Amino acid sequence: MKPDPQQLQQLLAPVQDGMKRMREVIALQLADASPAVRDMVEHVSRFQGKQLRAALVLLCGDASSNSTDEHASIAAVVEMIHLATLVHDDVLDGAKVRRRVACVNERWDNQVAVLFGDYLYARAFALSTDLSSRLCSRVLAEATRRICIGEIEQAASRYDFEMSQERYEWIAGAKTATLYAAACELGARYPGGHESMGANMRQFGYELGLAFQIIDDCLDLTASLEQAGKSVGTDVADGKVTLPVLWAYRRADEARRAQIRDCYTLAGLEDRVARLSEVCELSAGVEFARARANELLRSAVARLALLPPGASRSALESVAGFVLARDH
Amino acid sequence: MKPDPQQLQQLLAPVQDGMKRMREVIALQLADASPAVRDMVEHVSRFQGKQLRAALVLLCGDASSNSTDEHASIAAVVEMIHLATLVHDDVLDGAKVRRRVACVNERWDNQVAVLFGDYLYARAFALSTDLSSRLCSRVLAEATRRICIGEIEQAASRYDFEMSQERYEWIAGAKTATLYAAACELGARYPGGHESMGANMRQFGYELGLAFQIIDDCLDLTASLEQAGKSVGTDVADGKVTLPVLWAYRRADEARRAQIRDCYTLAGLEDRVARLSEVCELSAGVEFARARANELLRSAVARLALLPPGASRSALESVAGFVLARDH
Repeated sequence: MKPDPQQLQQLLAPVQDGMKRMREVIALQLADASPAVRDMVEHVSRFQGKQLRAALVLLCGDASSNSTDEHASIAAVVEMIHLATLVHDDVLDGAKVRRRVACVNERWDNQVAVLFGDYLYARAFALSTDLSSRLCSRVLAEATRRICIGEIEQAASRYDFEMSQERYEWIAGAKTATLYAAACELGARYPGGHESMGANMRQFGYELGLAFQIIDDCLDLTASLEQAGKSVGTDVADGKVTLPVLWAYRRADEARRAQIRDCYTLAGLEDRVARLSEVCELSAGVEFARARANELLRSAVARLALLPPGASRSALESVAGFVLARDH
Repeated sequence: MKPDPQQLQQLLAPVQDGMKRMREVIALQLADASPAVRDMVEHVSRFQGKQLRAALVLLCGDASSNSTDEHASIAAVVEMIHLATLVHDDVLDGAKVRRRVACVNERWDNQVAVLFGDYLYARAFALSTDLSSRLCSRVLAEATRRICIGEIEQAASRYDFEMSQERYEWIAGAKTATLYAAACELGARYPGGHESMGANMRQFGYELGLAFQIIDDCLDLTASLEQAGKSVGTDVADGKVTLPVLWAYRRADEARRAQIRDCYTLAGLEDRVARLSEVCELSAGVEFARARANELLRSAVARLALLPPGASRSALESVAGFVLARDH
């Protein structure tokens, strides 16, 4: 299965009204009086992407029979936080292209990308403080804190080829799965109560998000620039040692290990990933990582058994399949 | 009057218990399990500084007979937001030294400075969502949004020598005075009600903060590196045209104006500020800006007449004097 964006749209059919309202809320929130800000909003709105995290808020709400009038706003807050992390990631990675649109920091500069990311965070929190229950603010402030810690630990672990799989997953979980987990928990239990269903859906989101990040790390190694629509192979250039490489490194002898390290560190190396696949069992590493993602997704889907059957539960199951099969 | 830090400590005597609790709250909030984060917190805690914004929360609370058990936490949230803006400012400005401690982005890199600033924002919002009233989250989320807009507009206005004084003050107000205003409003009216006293103290904080920024801009031009304990003359190198220069530019003829622009833009110029003071009436511009700051401070102090006399009201009056007289 090679899902295309249209297929994802079909998956999201049960919540398409909510998605539309979510997009309206974001547009309203970002309709700012400042001309410089309007300029950036316009530019960034082309990033848009799958808005999967917003969809999870709505699908989990619907599947748990817990939809409220505020779910579209919660979805908007989650998407805006995600957008803020993307904008700040562009400062970090020096990635040249994201979704075929020049990054904020290419059109403007790092300075403005930092400020605009801050603005999106601030807008997201301001919106969350307007909701009737404080649960959204609380869950997302805590989620944002964990995302930052994950990113900071990732930065501190660059070029760490001895990293355990457990630590790799802790970092990937903190920086990526946290927001999926928060989206699913909020969907299932906002405005409050429903602790056990909330915890279950939180776990669903966490496993889904962790699998998403593992697949993302595989795609950074395997996809061509054209397929991905964003810069690929950037992890190697940035010193991020991801699961496929960790697996291959662990199985390599000392001479091979030195060659793997060279792929990351030698100055002027043109195609680091191509070189990496020559010196180690990279595709076996990718296979291992994909199997791990698959395992996580099966565990995630099993948790959906607690929900009543229906279109939204089916859609959540399909989203898991989409995460595994996506090639960009 | 050349106030020294000890004098400021004396001014803050009426709220020294609250300041101590505020510092304890920050320490507790930043005592994170992540080793990389602990490292950064340790480093940044040496920035500390005057913690004037936190003091304003407490003084305004006390002076309005509105102190609560939560004021120290509000003060901590305000300080953490301020710290986050400082950390992100260091990414922006490329300032080499801040308060004689190497900046976060010198010891680590831009990437980590962005993440750590995000972490501080997230921590601040998480703490604010634990307070009994949502007023703190609401006021500070909105304040943060305005701060970002101010910074973005400032970035968009670099090298704009035709800027009106009104626009200069709008930007300085948004990026700096907003947090002073929020601190004073929250001090005077948290957990809620007291709208008119809140609005009055908000105005007090706004004028105080705007004066603070104007003086800051003057000091960037006049202070030596040693006096300031942070990089000076950076505004000119960064293309920030501040009030003293706008004033001098408006009064210069076309030939002089070209020379002023050259001070900002010529590559390789060693001491841009020294050159600026040769080609235009810079010290008269500084005098004009200081007079404007003085005017704002007098208006701010007049607002304190609505408060009952007492040690905290006197301290607020003295803080205004401190802002005007400080030389770093």
